[in-house]
Amino acid sequence: MNVSGIFPALTTPFRDDGSVAPEQFKANLTRYNRTGLAGYVVLGSTGESVLLSRAEGEALLAAGKEAAAPGKLLIAGTGAESTAETIARTKRAASFGYQIALVKTPYYYKPAYNGAVYLRHYRSVADASPIPILLYSVPVFTGITLETPEIVELAKHPNIIGIKDSTGVIQRIVEVVPQAPADFRVLTGSAPVLYPALASGAKGAILALASALPERCVELFELFRNGQHAEAQELQQRLAFASKAIVSENSIAGLKYAMDLRGYRGGLPRLPLLPLAEEKKQRIVELVSQMEPAAVRA
Amino acid sequence: MNVSGIFPALTTPFRDDGSVAPEQFKANLTRYNRTGLAGYVVLGSTGESVLLSRAEGEALLAAGKEAAAPGKLLIAGTGAESTAETIARTKRAASFGYQIALVKTPYYYKPAYNGAVYLRHYRSVADASPIPILLYSVPVFTGITLETPEIVELAKHPNIIGIKDSTGVIQRIVEVVPQAPADFRVLTGSAPVLYPALASGAKGAILALASALPERCVELFELFRNGQHAEAQELQQRLAFASKAIVSENSIAGLKYAMDLRGYRGGLPRLPLLPLAEEKKQRIVELVSQMEPAAVRA
Amino acid sequence: MNVSGIFPALTTPFRDDGSVAPEQFKANLTRYNRTGLAGYVVLGSTGESVLLSRAEGEALLAAGKEAAAPGKLLIAGTGAESTAETIARTKRAASFGYQIALVKTPYYYKPAYNGAVYLRHYRSVADASPIPILLYSVPVFTGITLETPEIVELAKHPNIIGIKDSTGVIQRIVEVVPQAPADFRVLTGSAPVLYPALASGAKGAILALASALPERCVELFELFRNGQHAEAQELQQRLAFASKAIVSENSIAGLKYAMDLRGYRGGLPRLPLLPLAEEKKQRIVELVSQMEPAAVRA
Amino acid sequence: MNVSGIFPALTTPFRDDGSVAPEQFKANLTRYNRTGLAGYVVLGSTGESVLLSRAEGEALLAAGKEAAAPGKLLIAGTGAESTAETIARTKRAASFGYQIALVKTPYYYKPAYNGAVYLRHYRSVADASPIPILLYSVPVFTGITLETPEIVELAKHPNIIGIKDSTGVIQRIVEVVPQAPADFRVLTGSAPVLYPALASGAKGAILALASALPERCVELFELFRNGQHAEAQELQQRLAFASKAIVSENSIAGLKYAMDLRGYRGGLPRLPLLPLAEEKKQRIVELVSQMEPAAVRA
Repeated sequence: MNVSGIFPALTTPFRDDGSVAPEQFKANLTRYNRTGLAGYVVLGSTGESVLLSRAEGEALLAAGKEAAAPGKLLIAGTGAESTAETIARTKRAASFGYQIALVKTPYYYKPAYNGAVYLRHYRSVADASPIPILLYSVPVFTGITLETPEIVELAKHPNIIGIKDSTGVIQRIVEVVPQAPADFRVLTGSAPVLYPALASGAKGAILALASALPERCVELFELFRNGQHAEAQELQQRLAFASKAIVSENSIAGLKYAMDLRGYRGGLPRLPLLPLAEEKKQRIVELVSQMEPAAVRA
Repeated sequence: MNVSGIFPALTTPFRDDGSVAPEQFKANLTRYNRTGLAGYVVLGSTGESVLLSRAEGEALLAAGKEAAAPGKLLIAGTGAESTAETIARTKRAASFGYQIALVKTPYYYKPAYNGAVYLRHYRSVADASPIPILLYSVPVFTGITLETPEIVELAKHPNIIGIKDSTGVIQRIVEVVPQAPADFRVLTGSAPVLYPALASGAKGAILALASALPERCVELFELFRNGQHAEAQELQQRLAFASKAIVSENSIAGLKYAMDLRGYRGGLPRLPLLPLAEEKKQRIVELVSQMEPAAVRA
Repeated sequence: MNVSGIFPALTTPFRDDGSVAPEQFKANLTRYNRTGLAGYVVLGSTGESVLLSRAEGEALLAAGKEAAAPGKLLIAGTGAESTAETIARTKRAASFGYQIALVKTPYYYKPAYNGAVYLRHYRSVADASPIPILLYSVPVFTGITLETPEIVELAKHPNIIGIKDSTGVIQRIVEVVPQAPADFRVLTGSAPVLYPALASGAKGAILALASALPERCVELFELFRNGQHAEAQELQQRLAFASKAIVSENSIAGLKYAMDLRGYRGGLPRLPLLPLAEEKKQRIVELVSQMEPAAVRA
Repeated sequence: MNVSGIFPALTTPFRDDGSVAPEQFKANLTRYNRTGLAGYVVLGSTGESVLLSRAEGEALLAAGKEAAAPGKLLIAGTGAESTAETIARTKRAASFGYQIALVKTPYYYKPAYNGAVYLRHYRSVADASPIPILLYSVPVFTGITLETPEIVELAKHPNIIGIKDSTGVIQRIVEVVPQAPADFRVLTGSAPVLYPALASGAKGAILALASALPERCVELFELFRNGQHAEAQELQQRLAFASKAIVSENSIAGLKYAMDLRGYRGGLPRLPLLPLAEEKKQRIVELVSQMEPAAVRA
């Protein structure tokens, strides 16, 4: 299984009445299928998965499986707070045809969670899962960071094939890559450091930004792969500005607005997430227009 | 509605096969009914609510309603990440006969959450709820703190009757009490500062520790109410040691072990929470024995 | 030695040419001498001690000794990064007639500093000092917090007679008081929680706010001592608002401006500290006018 | 002025009686002169500058100037808390023949320090300084981080020629490089991410580790300059382990011990810094032996 390249963390479109819109979700995938994206992540943080019911999540899993072109790797977010529920969701994702489960850390009982808890949790999930799993460390949302020692320990499990590390901490990639088995894949979740992550041994990335600017993210990956370091450094700088203005500063509302500008079905996030403020729109319009595929090539 | 005094944050007992045990839950309430506790909090953080399914939660709501003595105020934890789901859970709790909803902050999309998000979220919930609500700020688990300005603003809503503040920050109580309406109740969630919280204007507390040591917590509240400040200061010190060793350092596993020692149905927490380590038990045995009602009075 | 009551953390007045003005410093003390302040802290954080040369500091020590009325306890801030320099400053303060040294934690090499470092540092200073010392924990400036175990351990040293804890964390007072010798004095450095600190066992306070509003701070201390808890709670609320607007939000520039309004020699802070912004002044004018001794008594 | 390549943050050797040993300091430089180091940083954080008197600091400045080979760039740490003292130290360093001043942020009055304070402070220093200055952001010690907007703003000043950023945050380099003038030099202070920093546009590094392993640090810089990315990635991993065990986990005591092993004059740090614990030595012995120049080439 070739888990490398760029994967978008897919957003969840909602209809005007607030219900999930699988048909719009599929429309997005139809367009993504024509890009160099390596696959798709359904029900990740960017997909507002913590705001969805179980039935809504399953509707999206089904839609994703149906719309994805052959050869696109299908990854489902399945992490829940309890170990048992995480296993149940992982099995369900597998039954929907997903090939990999992306399992975020439990994060509520922080004072009780430590390395031993994560080892036990992830090993239980990996033992029970019919599909391989990716660890997922995303402290910006969870307040929990998987540290090098536990990542290295978990990397030994045959059914744990990699990690999505969204911290943007390059030092962790530098440390994990040589200590983990050679086929353990580190994927970064941080678009502003995609190139330095790849240069440090990451195999790819799962990026919210790739839902709005898939071509540019893929282009950076290709520049790195071709050894075009100077060009990669330059495109990285541009992607960092775009990612900061669109994703870091405006979260899912900003990303969905950028998607709308690019012709995807973005729309509004679900409450308590608020729509993008009017005064934030102009900057995103500018950045997206600068990052259009044509503009970059010219 | 007299929302003052001591409320235990109830734990959830599990059977040996890992299933929820409403009959054990009811057995605990039968004993609590004989104490001076003012009421009960079902499905709070201490109740492992984030590890329960909807059906399991409803079984506990029903059991709590059934077992609670008349006059004991019934509070249900109903906070979910999405506004709509929070409203749904709040209505359900009301339909089960609960009198107050305890609504923790949404906490996943931290970079997007700010004062405006909390105002909108809580007002939407309070508008839709058939029962009054308590705000709930518990950064030790959520990473989110409700600050004075938004608390004071929300306190104006007629259906928001108070807050459970688990930060242990006494300054916030000092600030909120004079700025909020006179009948807005601040409840602390921090046993080690119960007395200074009361001395600063808090009306009571919702405490995990009160599930193991209800008599001592109630006794401290009574000492304060009777103006016995020196005795209150002294008992506070003893409760602080107990709370630190039982709850702060050992979380739900420690609390359940202390409950077992006191004859309640504590048991084990649900995974990913791990059972209490053997080497932590002796210290809890000592503290509980020192805090037995008889020992204190002697 | 009666280390209790209210001590102002004195500010350092500068002349128009930026030089230290010991004559203005003495003028302030002459007025403070007529209040119920228990003594004075010279060269504390509020005194901009880290912005002064050795000669400037000694000029202030001399001026303080000269101007203080008999019976006012004299405390000098002597903490430096190195143990040897801290000892040297402490001896110098003693030679100037100061009765107690206030020794802030070293704080630069944070990754290397731990409990063992603090034990060794403070014991070395206490062993060498001709005068008793107060520990000083002020993480808002240093990023370093003295925790309960090391405080309790250091409290056993015969020449360490107390601590100024500026964290505002009441739980630490609750924990330290019963574990330390009976004559170990906990002083809070946080005006917004002065009353709850006293109610939890603190013996007094060292407060920046007391440089602008000494009468009100002393009044709160007296209310507590007389067992007037309801009045204390009420005055505490008012002091908390004043402290937040004057000190917490505007730092030394705000405090000095409030002093100017009260007829003391406040003036401007030294660079890199900037003068108070114009738009911040009105709120301080209002608060100070509400807190004038006459206004309170009326 | 060619501010690129690897600069060691020099340590300060002490004699057995605790006094500064300029002769040992010079002996170290004599050996460093034979390496590919681009220059030297005297009186940086690693030099225990905050534990030294003014006279001790000047003795080291003189010794450094005397011992450094021609062509080695001389950088002096001159940052103090007050703006005036920073200027005074900077002028003194220039008078000793130093070519660049490394100016760490003021850091004590954190609640009062903000972008405006840093702009004013650094511009005042840069205006007054006879030599160009480097900004210095080192939150691990100061708790203060210079953020992209203020760095970019300060980069416009003709006498501010670069920054030492010790955060290890690669995203900041990605952001600053394209926004600052082309000749603004970003130097990283973080050995574990030297290669990704260079790949992101940094021009070099000031490293504590380079005081013990100068050849290896220079080798990594050269690999990058020659476009040998795969070899750079591999050496980076090895340096990251060495840096973590020697510097991150054991601070100056660990670094000095590693220097001793390599034949430099390391010795003990000054109190309150404690000597390296015995049980930490073996791991450092192993790492240093693996990183000996011969071992790497074999």
